[in-house]
Amino acid sequence: MYFTSEQLLDDGVLEREFTVGEIPGTLWIPASAGASGAAPVPLVLMAHNNGLPRTQSRLVARARHCAAHGYAVASIDAAGCGDRPRSAADEQARIELRRAMQAGEPVDEIFESFIGPLVEMAVPDWRTTLDALLTLPEIGGPVGYSGWTAVGIRLAVVEPRIAAAGFFAGGYVPRAQRDEARQVTVPLLFLLQWDDEGNPRERALDLFDSFGTKEKTLHANLGGHTGTPWFEVEDGNRFFGRHLK
Amino acid sequence: MYFTSEQLLDDGVLEREFTVGEIPGTLWIPASAGASGAAPVPLVLMAHNNGLPRTQSRLVARARHCAAHGYAVASIDAAGCGDRPRSAADEQARIELRRAMQAGEPVDEIFESFIGPLVEMAVPDWRTTLDALLTLPEIGGPVGYSGWTAVGIRLAVVEPRIAAAGFFAGGYVPRAQRDEARQVTVPLLFLLQWDDEGNPRERALDLFDSFGTKEKTLHANLGGHTGTPWFEVEDGNRFFGRHLK
Repeated sequence: MYFTSEQLLDDGVLEREFTVGEIPGTLWIPASAGASGAAPVPLVLMAHNNGLPRTQSRLVARARHCAAHGYAVASIDAAGCGDRPRSAADEQARIELRRAMQAGEPVDEIFESFIGPLVEMAVPDWRTTLDALLTLPEIGGPVGYSGWTAVGIRLAVVEPRIAAAGFFAGGYVPRAQRDEARQVTVPLLFLLQWDDEGNPRERALDLFDSFGTKEKTLHANLGGHTGTPWFEVEDGNRFFGRHLK
Repeated sequence: MYFTSEQLLDDGVLEREFTVGEIPGTLWIPASAGASGAAPVPLVLMAHNNGLPRTQSRLVARARHCAAHGYAVASIDAAGCGDRPRSAADEQARIELRRAMQAGEPVDEIFESFIGPLVEMAVPDWRTTLDALLTLPEIGGPVGYSGWTAVGIRLAVVEPRIAAAGFFAGGYVPRAQRDEARQVTVPLLFLLQWDDEGNPRERALDLFDSFGTKEKTLHANLGGHTGTPWFEVEDGNRFFGRHLK
C-alpha cells in the first residue's frame, strides 16, 4: 500500500490518496487519529452505487462528514469501476442501460449482464483494500460498510470483518445478491428514496424484507434518487456509532 | 387549568398532573424551564394509540426521555380514552376488537364503528388542552405531535399550531383519517414495526404514500408492535429538533 498524496481539509480531516496494487483509493481520516497515544478509529468502507467514481462529489461529502465524526472512511475504484479501464462491451452496456432507463424500458437483462460481473470483480478488490487498511496503526476494527447495495450484500456474506452495513437504493440488484440477501446477518440500515426513478420501490421493500438479519432498519424519504436529505448522513453516523464504537 | 400534583424525577424532569375541565392530563417538563430568564420550551403532544391510558409505562418512558431533551411533553386521557368513562357499547366493542384481532378475523368494521367516533371525540379535548398549555409562560410554540396516527392526522389537518408530527403504526386508521391524510402538509416522521401483528404492513405503507406533505420520512424496524427499538425515541427527538427549535 502506497500513499501518493495527502491534504488536510478544513474540517480537520486528512484526505489521503493511495494505491494497493492496481487499486486506486482515498482514505479520509481525522487528522488527530495519527497522534501518539490516540486510540485507533473504526473503519467504514464507502462504495458508490454501480461503480461510479470515488471522486464523485456526493460520495466525497458523505465520506468527509463521516470522517469528521471519528471514523476512517475509505473508497476505491474497484476493477471496472470509476476511472479504471473498462472493456468496450462494458462501455456499450453502460450506455445501453442509461438509454433503456431513460426510455422506461425493462432493464433487468442489461443490468444482470453488466452489473452482475462488476460486483463479482469489485468484491475481491474491496477485500484486498481492507487487508491493507487494517495494517495501519491508526485504524482498528470493527468495520462498517456504506453505499452500493449489491457489493455490500456480497461483502457482508463473504467477509466476517464487516460488522454493520448501510445500504442505499436497492431496487435493481443482481439476482445472485438478491438470493444471498438472506445470508446477511449483520445489523443493517437500509435507505431508500420513495420516488427513486431508477429503483422500483416494491423491489427495494422486498429486498429489505428478505435480509436475514434480526436487526434491520428501513429509512425512506420522499423524492428522487439524488434527493436524500442530509440528515440521513447524520443518521448513518449514529447507526455506525451504535455498532462500531 | 389546575395542577393537582407535581414530582421532580431523577432525570431533571418535573412531572405535573393537571386537569382542564373534565380532561385529566400529565405534563413532563425540564425543571429548569420555569427558571427566571429561561426561554420557553417547545411543546410536544403525545397520544397513545387507540386511547390507551396516558399512564401506560411505554408512553411515560417516551415522554420523560423527550422532556429530558428540552421539550414540554403533554398527554391526556381524552373523552372515552384511558381512565375516562366509557359507554357499555364501547366497552363491548373494545372486547370484540381484541377477540377478532387475536382470532385473525377481519376487524375493519368493528374498528370503524369504535375507533372512528373515539377520534372525533378526542380531538376537541386535545385542542382544549393545547389552548390551556400555551398560556403557561414556560411553554412556547411551535407545537409537535407524537403517537396515535388517526388523532394526529385529524389534529394536523384542523389545528394550524401543529408544526411537525411523528406517527406510529397506522395499519388500521379510520376511513375519515385515511381520506384526509392527503391534507396533512407538515413535516412527518412515520414509524412502523415491520411485523406488527395488529397493523397490516401494506396499509401502513399506503398511508405513508398518501400524506400530502413534501417532507416525510419513514422509519421501519423488524419486529412486532411493542418491539420498537429505543433509538427511535432518540430519532424522534432529533426530528423535533429539526422542526421545533
